[in-house]
Parts: sequence; C-alpha cells; structure tokens
Amino acid sequence: MFLKDMRVSYLLDFYGDLLDEHTASVMRAYYNDDLSLAEIALDIGISRQGIRHLIKKGADALEFYDSRLKLSEKHEDILDACDKLKEIADGLYRDGKSDTASQMSEIIEILSKGN
Amino acid sequence: MFLKDMRVSYLLDFYGDLLDEHTASVMRAYYNDDLSLAEIALDIGISRQGIRHLIKKGADALEFYDSRLKLSEKHEDILDACDKLKEIADGLYRDGKSDTASQMSEIIEILSKGN
Repeated sequence: MFLKDMRVSYLLDFYGDLLDEHTASVMRAYYNDDLSLAEIALDIGISRQGIRHLIKKGADALEFYDSRLKLSEKHEDILDACDKLKEIADGLYRDGKSDTASQMSEIIEILSKGN
Repeated sequence: MFLKDMRVSYLLDFYGDLLDEHTASVMRAYYNDDLSLAEIALDIGISRQGIRHLIKKGADALEFYDSRLKLSEKHEDILDACDKLKEIADGLYRDGKSDTASQMSEIIEILSKGN
C-alpha cells in the first residue's frame, strides 16, 4: 500500500525547501495538488515506479530532517502558546481593555503564521 | 584569513544537528569551545588543513540550510514578538493585573526559548 500521508504533507511545509527542486515538485504535486502517481509519471516522463521511489526517498528525507530539527513539534508548542495568549486577550477584551487585547491579537497572528 | 565567525556559531545552534556527527563535533569544538585548529587537529589526528576544510564545508552547509529554512530570521521575529508581549505584560503589572501579567511572562519565557 502507498497511502497518501497527511504527515508527509505537513512535513513538506516545513522542510520541502531542503529537497532538490525535482523531488520537491513531484512531492508537492502528489501531496498538495493531489495528483496520482500515474498523472505525475505522465507529466514528468518517468515511470510510475520511478515516481514512487522518488516520493519514498523524499519522505524519508523529510522524516530525517524532522527527527533532527523537530520543527513540527516546535511549531505545535508555538500554537499552544498562542492559544493561551488568545485566552488572555479574550479576558482583556471582557475587562474593557480592548486596545491592549487588540495589540496582543496582532502579535498572536504573527506568531501563529511563522513555521 | 579564517576568522571565527559569530554567525556560524549562531547557525550551528539552529542546524548543527543536520550535520554529520564528525563535522558537528569539530565545529562545536571550534566555535563553541573555542579550541584552535591546531588543538582540534591534534585531538582528532588529522591535519590542520583537513580541519579547516571540514569547518569550511560545514559552514557552507549551515548557510545553505539557513538560506532555505530561514530559521534564524524566524527566531528573530519570535524574539521581536516576545519583546512586544513583554511591554504589554509590564503595562498589566503596572495596572495591578499581576496574575495576568505573570501568566503572560510564563508564555513569553517558553516562546523565547524555542529555536
């Protein structure tokens, strides 16, 4: 079985730019644009088996990068922190401190976007 | 000239774990423990020139990773956001909302540590 894996797609957001251009573009076609192996094989002009191999190698590389840098875990930590900050900002809104709350919301927005 | 570069030392914190163990340990000895090329060469049993070459290759790899992932820049953005949150927390302390301010300080602490 060669099921599409949400985790690979997630890791591609973090580490896709470390892959060589060819591998990255095949993996984005497969995971982000939801093309089939056969469609990609036709586009690129290599065998379905070749595409499968490339994707497997790319996915292994992404897992290696994440085992070393742990960016996905760190990103989750940032999102957790943002959730807590949001609760605080909501409390400030309720207390009528809407200027402060709105400043906080802007900062939370910036923090939650970076990955 | 082969001056020690603070930037390389900084990038080593972000991407050192992507280097092979040998290169990472030589680079940490040079940049973090401030050993000389000659001292490391003696320790490892390869020439000074070999160490110089290894460090140059490692530094190039770190720059490559940062050009792709931009973690150092993203970390600076997080620190900027933390500075702004600190100002808000300080204001809350001054307004007598020390519980909320102290909750914020804990979150800021967590955010500013991750890289």
